[in-house]
Amino acid sequence: MLIVMTRTATPDLVARVCQVIETMGLVAHPMFGAQRTAIGVTGNKRQVDSDRIANLPGVQEVIQVTRPYQLVSREYHPEDTVVDIGGVKVGGREFTLMAGPCSVESEEQCTRIAEAVAESGVRIFRGGAYKPRSSPYTFQGLGEQGLEILAKVRERFGLKIVTEAVDTETLGLVAQYTDIIQIGARNMQNYSLLKKAGQTGKPILLKRGQAATLDELLLSAEYILAENNPNVILCERGVRTLANHSRNTLDLSAIPFIKSSSHLPIIADPSHGTGRREKVLPLSRASMAVGADGIMVEVHNQPELALSDGAQSITLDMFRTLVKQLRRLAPTVDKVYP
Amino acid sequence: MLIVMTRTATPDLVARVCQVIETMGLVAHPMFGAQRTAIGVTGNKRQVDSDRIANLPGVQEVIQVTRPYQLVSREYHPEDTVVDIGGVKVGGREFTLMAGPCSVESEEQCTRIAEAVAESGVRIFRGGAYKPRSSPYTFQGLGEQGLEILAKVRERFGLKIVTEAVDTETLGLVAQYTDIIQIGARNMQNYSLLKKAGQTGKPILLKRGQAATLDELLLSAEYILAENNPNVILCERGVRTLANHSRNTLDLSAIPFIKSSSHLPIIADPSHGTGRREKVLPLSRASMAVGADGIMVEVHNQPELALSDGAQSITLDMFRTLVKQLRRLAPTVDKVYP
Amino acid sequence: MLIVMTRTATPDLVARVCQVIETMGLVAHPMFGAQRTAIGVTGNKRQVDSDRIANLPGVQEVIQVTRPYQLVSREYHPEDTVVDIGGVKVGGREFTLMAGPCSVESEEQCTRIAEAVAESGVRIFRGGAYKPRSSPYTFQGLGEQGLEILAKVRERFGLKIVTEAVDTETLGLVAQYTDIIQIGARNMQNYSLLKKAGQTGKPILLKRGQAATLDELLLSAEYILAENNPNVILCERGVRTLANHSRNTLDLSAIPFIKSSSHLPIIADPSHGTGRREKVLPLSRASMAVGADGIMVEVHNQPELALSDGAQSITLDMFRTLVKQLRRLAPTVDKVYP
Amino acid sequence: MLIVMTRTATPDLVARVCQVIETMGLVAHPMFGAQRTAIGVTGNKRQVDSDRIANLPGVQEVIQVTRPYQLVSREYHPEDTVVDIGGVKVGGREFTLMAGPCSVESEEQCTRIAEAVAESGVRIFRGGAYKPRSSPYTFQGLGEQGLEILAKVRERFGLKIVTEAVDTETLGLVAQYTDIIQIGARNMQNYSLLKKAGQTGKPILLKRGQAATLDELLLSAEYILAENNPNVILCERGVRTLANHSRNTLDLSAIPFIKSSSHLPIIADPSHGTGRREKVLPLSRASMAVGADGIMVEVHNQPELALSDGAQSITLDMFRTLVKQLRRLAPTVDKVYP
Repeated sequence: MLIVMTRTATPDLVARVCQVIETMGLVAHPMFGAQRTAIGVTGNKRQVDSDRIANLPGVQEVIQVTRPYQLVSREYHPEDTVVDIGGVKVGGREFTLMAGPCSVESEEQCTRIAEAVAESGVRIFRGGAYKPRSSPYTFQGLGEQGLEILAKVRERFGLKIVTEAVDTETLGLVAQYTDIIQIGARNMQNYSLLKKAGQTGKPILLKRGQAATLDELLLSAEYILAENNPNVILCERGVRTLANHSRNTLDLSAIPFIKSSSHLPIIADPSHGTGRREKVLPLSRASMAVGADGIMVEVHNQPELALSDGAQSITLDMFRTLVKQLRRLAPTVDKVYP
Repeated sequence: MLIVMTRTATPDLVARVCQVIETMGLVAHPMFGAQRTAIGVTGNKRQVDSDRIANLPGVQEVIQVTRPYQLVSREYHPEDTVVDIGGVKVGGREFTLMAGPCSVESEEQCTRIAEAVAESGVRIFRGGAYKPRSSPYTFQGLGEQGLEILAKVRERFGLKIVTEAVDTETLGLVAQYTDIIQIGARNMQNYSLLKKAGQTGKPILLKRGQAATLDELLLSAEYILAENNPNVILCERGVRTLANHSRNTLDLSAIPFIKSSSHLPIIADPSHGTGRREKVLPLSRASMAVGADGIMVEVHNQPELALSDGAQSITLDMFRTLVKQLRRLAPTVDKVYP
Repeated sequence: MLIVMTRTATPDLVARVCQVIETMGLVAHPMFGAQRTAIGVTGNKRQVDSDRIANLPGVQEVIQVTRPYQLVSREYHPEDTVVDIGGVKVGGREFTLMAGPCSVESEEQCTRIAEAVAESGVRIFRGGAYKPRSSPYTFQGLGEQGLEILAKVRERFGLKIVTEAVDTETLGLVAQYTDIIQIGARNMQNYSLLKKAGQTGKPILLKRGQAATLDELLLSAEYILAENNPNVILCERGVRTLANHSRNTLDLSAIPFIKSSSHLPIIADPSHGTGRREKVLPLSRASMAVGADGIMVEVHNQPELALSDGAQSITLDMFRTLVKQLRRLAPTVDKVYP
Repeated sequence: MLIVMTRTATPDLVARVCQVIETMGLVAHPMFGAQRTAIGVTGNKRQVDSDRIANLPGVQEVIQVTRPYQLVSREYHPEDTVVDIGGVKVGGREFTLMAGPCSVESEEQCTRIAEAVAESGVRIFRGGAYKPRSSPYTFQGLGEQGLEILAKVRERFGLKIVTEAVDTETLGLVAQYTDIIQIGARNMQNYSLLKKAGQTGKPILLKRGQAATLDELLLSAEYILAENNPNVILCERGVRTLANHSRNTLDLSAIPFIKSSSHLPIIADPSHGTGRREKVLPLSRASMAVGADGIMVEVHNQPELALSDGAQSITLDMFRTLVKQLRRLAPTVDKVYP
């Protein structure tokens, strides 16, 4: 931590700040410059709550140097975490594709889609049973009935399931049915849900919020790891920016940043990241090339009849093309793709 | 709704789209232009779920004209809603000031602050008992003990209380103690919480999310009104932008937009909106001048010792200055400020 | 400046960094912490070019403490700058209103508008003769003919003129006719234009770019002051954000930030800042209340026939109302408004 | 174009709007709905200036359907444009790598870098002789001396040159020396420069502005094509967003959008797009995978001594690794990379 004093701060004020620092069990290193004094702080093992110092008289600015997270950081845990979902791995050299409809709409719909994606070698099936929707008047998901359909798909096609938990009330039910609990972008900072989801012990897919920095994403993951659940998969799904040609701006530079800052696997979601079907294939290739551990894509047998997110769902044919493209690409970026 | 067809869309595809529109009980108005065909749609009373049409072959774009919300809209309810909290009003010509610490830290702290703000004529006291924090390692609030302190403050100083509910588990407890339930920015799209909060029948203070559009804010309010709870106060508290001189960018143009689109009262939060104590007074004045129904500010008797948000909390002296400034300003912008 | 070393940086690497710092004529203060070493740097009178150090082996991050600008900073020049335009002042306790059409369209149009604004006590008339337009197919301004019309308006109504210079070719001509040279948002980082405009000696109105930080705005002003021209008026006109209810997001917290960081006057432009006529009055009041030194607004006698920016131009009647509102408001925020 | 009338618009107002439309030589299609009237407009061959209509009484909103650009659009010119720079091609199946230092610093520096990139098969060398810098106190480039150095590099290594023109004064000189004129992000809307650059007849590399939408980028290109210069290469170099882990957010979804909307080639700049050396390789691979026609990267023989942008310049060794990676990747995404 570095404390920058105002130009007019008297030696007394500097001394007082140093004293507060010592009280906190830390070491103060005052540096008297030509224009102002700065005070370096060492001795902290974790980020210091800077508010206490920021508010002292004569303090102009407090600059944090230590990252605010710990369990998720690569400094703390240098090896890559590989999340094992009953034999299906996410992380390491593996490239994992999660595919399925935005919403579970019917058993027939899921069966058709699951059949196609299973044939293409996909081993994780996505589908929403509980849907957080901006409007109270749009389709909100089939609820438990949707979870039952997902369970049938798992049994019939040997697929693992990932589905979203939107609140603590239904979390237990979701956890019973699913292999991976998804926490959506809107809930990235719903800390009660994060803690309870962590306590289930299930692998968690944590999506970046629409305006979240990567430090905030990692801190949200820290909530889960602090519950003794190390099985967290991060997901970049786009942030909201000034760009108006896509639903969100997929921030692919997040992938190398997370890779160097954290040991957790991270996948990309080019469906939400772009919002347009015709951009899903190029951005999926880019996600693999940039080093993501996998992607999650929305696929629909009849996108024009989809009850949600039809515009960004690719057809079964597009999906088969995507799989072919990724298979060609994988070895050139040192990824294993089954 | 307007449907724009691609330039190469055949008359057959146009006919099929018109047919789907008619199936939905709406009226299609095809317009054959020099370069392409567009289809106007009338007959809808509420926003049509456009996905179904957007995905039809030959459709390039679907443009929504009808706003997606209803109960919150001024078209639906032309008169201003005035929320009455046991005689204290928010909305109409009244300008309401809510003040207090970021977090409830101790009975003594709250008493000191409450005493000062009550003397200045404030009638609503804010203070967090449950704090949603980015990091699991920072102060998370006193919980029920904090609520009890707030109850004592109410009794002693005759103040109304506004405090945040962060999850459905503790919502019931919060509702027992508080006069207004605050839903924070991070939970603006936590629909389960919105619905349950709506069902308590208590007035709700709903803060805009960090990347939320105003349509999304109004749709979140719609979730509450749809539970037969019309007592919603909106709050502009800044959005995240490229600007790095303030914690958030307070979007004051949101106030006149909401005033014309909705009948709900809207206040501003210049503390979170700027993140810096020295900007709270100017932005509070601006909030009044732009037409807000009130402001919510963080005040602390010893900001340098605050357990959270010290940097944006104003001192008791600054608060007294603020009240004086607002009293001078109010009549010139036709606001009643007690 | 603070240099944060990586955790694995050896004492040798630390020594090398210190050596480079000393070579630059500065003083290095290494601080050996439990987890890593940081190096404080003092002795610099101006911001150090950090690239040279950022790239040394073992360096994780370089944190600048000194602000990059000098001539524009309040530390350098503590008193408010008041720009005097032939007796009309911008800055200090004065609140200055600049008003007129977006584009000069005809002598009649300008005469009508100038007459109305002069009657309301306005002393600075705005109007574009050269218009930077996103599309090559829209109206680009009358050019020199427009400047001549502005000159007639000045003579007839005793108004000062502010008009935009869009390139160095026409700058000389603009400078001959105008009292204040406006540099628009698109040209905020057109350094050749800034330097040449500075050299004219004329007062400069410098608008913030659409994605510019305030440090960048001040650095652009620094280019002008470095040409020995201290007569710079800054202008906040909104930044581009995720908000879609307004053309730009007027960032009013910029005003107090600039006021504390710089001695230059700053005005707001609620016309471009919102893009919607019906928001201009509330945001104008807010601009005064937040402490701006003035505002610039677009007024048109027939906005529905305006050749540019009609949607954000207020009518003459709205303008008269605005003036009344500002006159009531001014004394309550300690502003002098004639 | 679609015109949405307010709910209270009378038939008279609707009729007046229709009349104005007819006056403009267009056809009006009024649609009388349950809640309001909308008016479709056909007959326009180019985007209509909507201001005139937006300002008519009773008009709530005008929605543009026709894109505002023409010459750059794929509808107008369906085949891919391939820009030929003396035999080196940009566009089509070719993937083109442009590499070199941020700034030309000395003949020796350029020689070393040029030698290394030429050996790796690169045929276009980049280097700035005129540098637009935020601060007037940082290195501004060698000017004409820099251009001469670039000319020597061209001669000695048979490379083509791309360098930036920052103003119309030095444009002629730059055009004499360079093979491609670069227009930087800060000048994307410097229309005088765009027009004059277009008139040189030289190929133009046009970078997206920091807050520019893709429609604005295409309109800026339209300015160049309108000067009868079809040789424009677009460049995505990142936009400014809330993300703070990278200098800019590289918006790779821009590539497929431009590919479908325009016939012009588009490359990516992962150096400016990320601002961090360690992200350049992954984002370069992603740029190829997403379908870009090439990339432009900053390479330096001694990045720690670079006079500008050292933190984002990759070393010669990293560059060789990059070339190997791209060569492996190219055939799997159907790109030809020499």
